[in-house]
Amino acid sequence: MLNVDVKKKILDANEECAVANTRFFTEKKILCLNMISSPGSGKTTILTRTITDLNGKLKIAVIEGDIQTEYDADRIRATGAAAIQINTHGACHLTAEQVSHALHGLPLKDVGLVVVENVGNLVCPSAFELGEDAKVVVLSTAEGDDKPAKYPGTFAKAAAVLINKTDLLHALDFDLDRVKTDCRRLNHNVKIFEVSAKTGKGMPAWYDWLLSRLQK
Amino acid sequence: MLNVDVKKKILDANEECAVANTRFFTEKKILCLNMISSPGSGKTTILTRTITDLNGKLKIAVIEGDIQTEYDADRIRATGAAAIQINTHGACHLTAEQVSHALHGLPLKDVGLVVVENVGNLVCPSAFELGEDAKVVVLSTAEGDDKPAKYPGTFAKAAAVLINKTDLLHALDFDLDRVKTDCRRLNHNVKIFEVSAKTGKGMPAWYDWLLSRLQK
Repeated sequence: MLNVDVKKKILDANEECAVANTRFFTEKKILCLNMISSPGSGKTTILTRTITDLNGKLKIAVIEGDIQTEYDADRIRATGAAAIQINTHGACHLTAEQVSHALHGLPLKDVGLVVVENVGNLVCPSAFELGEDAKVVVLSTAEGDDKPAKYPGTFAKAAAVLINKTDLLHALDFDLDRVKTDCRRLNHNVKIFEVSAKTGKGMPAWYDWLLSRLQK
Repeated sequence: MLNVDVKKKILDANEECAVANTRFFTEKKILCLNMISSPGSGKTTILTRTITDLNGKLKIAVIEGDIQTEYDADRIRATGAAAIQINTHGACHLTAEQVSHALHGLPLKDVGLVVVENVGNLVCPSAFELGEDAKVVVLSTAEGDDKPAKYPGTFAKAAAVLINKTDLLHALDFDLDRVKTDCRRLNHNVKIFEVSAKTGKGMPAWYDWLLSRLQK
């Protein structure tokens, strides 16, 4: 749709700011993850459980991206963790500049991990680097097992994929093997976690991965 | 993100083509609906059941929008209906021009309804008019009851909202009243249908609405 030059210019400006964010995270020895998914895949529930279960082991802060409302930041704050809400007012993804601004308002003392929960959208956010260490994509079982094949651009960039809402598997036609095969076809190094953020099943493997990636 | 003038130019060009599509539908006495939702809300399942259940009463043709794959068009064709797949190869929404091209390849004899199943994305598609008579938004219960509040731009433009996967309600915390109240706050004329495309529950009311909107 966009004129190629215009699109390149926008992405270049974003890239420049993303590089500055990466420098910031490296200096502070903070791991940053960019969490991407469809609306309602359970990103915030994954985060609230992760924050609670890793309490005492890892201090986490969250940057919440939503078009509207402060709901998700409020849910994060209820765990005791710091959260800043960015409302994009219509825009479909976060930019590196928005993340940069948010970082200045976030208390980062002793924080080892900053998670950016992107706007619920399985397409656009993956085109905008935020300076993160890695992208994590969440797929809910209720969304169906064809999603990696239908949204390859996003899944190809994921260092880790969390298949969430496995507690609903009994009520769904969802082929776990198909999803895993399709994800690995797009990125053979991808780490895949089958979890239920609601019940806690499968979460420890995700925690181990997080802890193993912390900046020393 | 985009320079305001550039964005306006793109939307204006799209609008011009959308007006031509509207003229085309009016001349052919075809109702056109633009179906928008998150990935995996069940748009295609709603359509396959609708086509089958209305067989003999209403001939439906479908334009499928996806970033990649022909999966959804194949599912529609399996019902006997005509379908054309548009692959956007990364783009997050359909444009009026793409729909115009697709219409020329779609057999429309005796067709009363063309449904455009947009790219799974609850944000971007609602900004691009396709020449449709109305937008229909699908929300799956598995996505959570906060979605109308978090994606107001899209829900405000919906003439009808289908709350799908009601067969999963027993396993979820989903407040139907909250969703209905939030939808009506955004558009007090919105028609809301509680359905399970899987079991068929609630679908007849949706069929009645469709039939009542056909162009005479």
